[in-house]
Amino acid sequence: MTAKTIYNLDTDALPSAWLNIAAQIPYELPLPIDAVTGEPPSVESLAKLYPSECARIELLVGEYKTAPRIAIPTAVLAEYAKYRPTPLYRARGLENALGYAGAIYFKREDFNPSGSHKPNTSLAQAYYGKADGLSRLVTDTGAGQWGTALAYSCRRFDLDCSIFMTRKSYTDKPYRSTMMRLCGAEVFPSPSDRTKTGRDLLAEDPHHAGSLGIGMAEAVEYVNSVSNTRLALGCMSYYAALHQTVIGLEVEDQVKLTGDVPDIMIGCVGGGTNFIGFVAPFIIDRINGHNNIDFVAVESASIPVLTDGEYRYDFADYAGFTPKVKMYTLGHDFVPPPIHSGGLRYHGKSPILSLLYHHGQLRATSVQQEEAFAAGRLFLEHEGILPAPETNHAIAQVIREVKRSMAEGVVRNIYFCFSGTGYLDLKSYADAAAS
Amino acid sequence: MTAKTIYNLDTDALPSAWLNIAAQIPYELPLPIDAVTGEPPSVESLAKLYPSECARIELLVGEYKTAPRIAIPTAVLAEYAKYRPTPLYRARGLENALGYAGAIYFKREDFNPSGSHKPNTSLAQAYYGKADGLSRLVTDTGAGQWGTALAYSCRRFDLDCSIFMTRKSYTDKPYRSTMMRLCGAEVFPSPSDRTKTGRDLLAEDPHHAGSLGIGMAEAVEYVNSVSNTRLALGCMSYYAALHQTVIGLEVEDQVKLTGDVPDIMIGCVGGGTNFIGFVAPFIIDRINGHNNIDFVAVESASIPVLTDGEYRYDFADYAGFTPKVKMYTLGHDFVPPPIHSGGLRYHGKSPILSLLYHHGQLRATSVQQEEAFAAGRLFLEHEGILPAPETNHAIAQVIREVKRSMAEGVVRNIYFCFSGTGYLDLKSYADAAAS
Repeated sequence: MTAKTIYNLDTDALPSAWLNIAAQIPYELPLPIDAVTGEPPSVESLAKLYPSECARIELLVGEYKTAPRIAIPTAVLAEYAKYRPTPLYRARGLENALGYAGAIYFKREDFNPSGSHKPNTSLAQAYYGKADGLSRLVTDTGAGQWGTALAYSCRRFDLDCSIFMTRKSYTDKPYRSTMMRLCGAEVFPSPSDRTKTGRDLLAEDPHHAGSLGIGMAEAVEYVNSVSNTRLALGCMSYYAALHQTVIGLEVEDQVKLTGDVPDIMIGCVGGGTNFIGFVAPFIIDRINGHNNIDFVAVESASIPVLTDGEYRYDFADYAGFTPKVKMYTLGHDFVPPPIHSGGLRYHGKSPILSLLYHHGQLRATSVQQEEAFAAGRLFLEHEGILPAPETNHAIAQVIREVKRSMAEGVVRNIYFCFSGTGYLDLKSYADAAAS
Repeated sequence: MTAKTIYNLDTDALPSAWLNIAAQIPYELPLPIDAVTGEPPSVESLAKLYPSECARIELLVGEYKTAPRIAIPTAVLAEYAKYRPTPLYRARGLENALGYAGAIYFKREDFNPSGSHKPNTSLAQAYYGKADGLSRLVTDTGAGQWGTALAYSCRRFDLDCSIFMTRKSYTDKPYRSTMMRLCGAEVFPSPSDRTKTGRDLLAEDPHHAGSLGIGMAEAVEYVNSVSNTRLALGCMSYYAALHQTVIGLEVEDQVKLTGDVPDIMIGCVGGGTNFIGFVAPFIIDRINGHNNIDFVAVESASIPVLTDGEYRYDFADYAGFTPKVKMYTLGHDFVPPPIHSGGLRYHGKSPILSLLYHHGQLRATSVQQEEAFAAGRLFLEHEGILPAPETNHAIAQVIREVKRSMAEGVVRNIYFCFSGTGYLDLKSYADAAAS
């Protein structure tokens, strides 16, 4: 009998509702505030920036304030059903390579359209944008995972799409933009000549590497200059975190299949939504005293937002165009060094992640990119799966936890979120091997 | 209730034996012959070229002559279990886009390690090589699917690996070789300066695009010059076809889950083993009068081996180093034009595929690359999945069959093999869009 490695769920196990974390925890999620008034903007005002339903989510209006779950619209569910539920794999190859007696499981969000967890929210955002009668969504993207997901989602819901892609990633991952364009999107390397923010930065340095914060500033400026257009955000919103809870809801069912109750749950954090989505039901259970799982958010050592930042109100974008959100931040004018994990190059962390971290509900740690790439290569050699550079940070932490457990003589069940494929990041692997 | 799209099998449905097609059909599979004697080589002689068990398979020795199924070695099964059974998806997005009332299903062989169907045989070949006490396997690769799969498999079974990669693909897909190297393989663009065959061709044309046949000639020459080394073949052997039957055996179980009996089964053909593996149990059933499925092998219009070649003994490689095999061929010295589907750039077709075609058990058709890329882009837009350029040929034929069925007012269930991911082929998409 061959040992079981793949834990599938049937279509009827696809969650029909998202988990409304903010309504289920004893801490109040701070709302975005207007930089001038210091007060939360009205829904009408915020709906000039985001699709109106996203603005309602962000301001916790109506059911978003109180309902424990939020029904997933039928059209979004139909798109989810094309690729979800995603399988949970047991990393038997990695376990053997490390000589570990415990179990390591990973959730395959790389199987999703465009190769990452991102469509879980981009499909919903495009749906809400179309419902508003918009003609276009605009966004920024770092590694390109978010841009490809949004480009595909806009194609599904018949919207135009404009993407400001961090110049460092645009250059390192030329085929990410090819894929966005195949889905009909327009893509600009950021800083770009399309906005004043971009032009000012290019005047200082024509080869400016860019950052997620700069791309977001350009996207907001672009939204304000093009009619019937709104901003789509991959991670820095509560709505993105809400949509990603489909991941954790499925994992909850899959844990019942494995029979191995998680001791540790690990995810990489850029903005933090794949991690939050992955742990959401488990962290609520822990707050309610139903488990004692060790949740570990792994960031890049080059951008130590949780491990070295401050918890305060700050702008989500570089230029200060967006409302302020309460989060861990290195300062909105922090320009991250050009590491290969473009998706982690951001000065802040999602408000819901920041809130839970502030209240001690998760651990944060950081990994240098050399350790991350070594972990990714080991994973490839033993599992045959090439992780995204961002995902490598989670795998590096898994390896650390395995070594710690073995040193302590303790067997722990470790779960991590395999947030995206590395097939489109091979230049980063090649460059990292050469450096 | 969300409509079902994904049909999974549990680990215990993983086939424990390969389907020995040659022993189950009423036609005799012609054996390879020595070019000088015109007789089949001995196992000992052929085992100087291939791992010895592969030589036994190729010469239909012992159980390979008579047994309907061949047990999969436990170590290979353990590796299969890391990624198999693979899911069968229903292409609801494509059905809707085409307005088709019938069902279209596709087998996800892109989820496999290295992103294609190839590890189904490379893992077995590496296992047999290790069992012989070899230190290294050598091969050629076109698109790079085979090379990445073999590099990974050699890493799994602790063998060194050398790969001659068609120069056109080496240039078009630079990150394929990165991935092979991440698994520890050495990779040479072919024609290379490592062999006389390569040096002679480079003297004629320093920018020679290469072909699978040339790469194979270089690999054979290299095998003969390096001790304790054998050749691994991705498609032109019976053993590769045998190993790929795991695909079709799983599909057989999945058809029971869908309840939609196939009317048409489609696959792209380079050498032809993903197609043969996909249809194997069904084509045997048809020969035995148990179904009337229309099997369609789709080749590149630039390399019309089945649609315009001859059925005769010919060399598998460009230089005439290998035994001759009976197959459809354009002649071993045919150098295919540098199309983007590197995996289809081969002058011949697998002997078992050729035999079945010769006896009228399948249809062959060809697709121009423009039509193939247009089909792939439509698939991406509606399914969120980027196919390999080779796979696009199958999708183009699916679209043709849908249009034909709609014109005839007939609803047919169409199944196709999604042989590989296109994530590593985005330069080809970009170039095709620009041309």
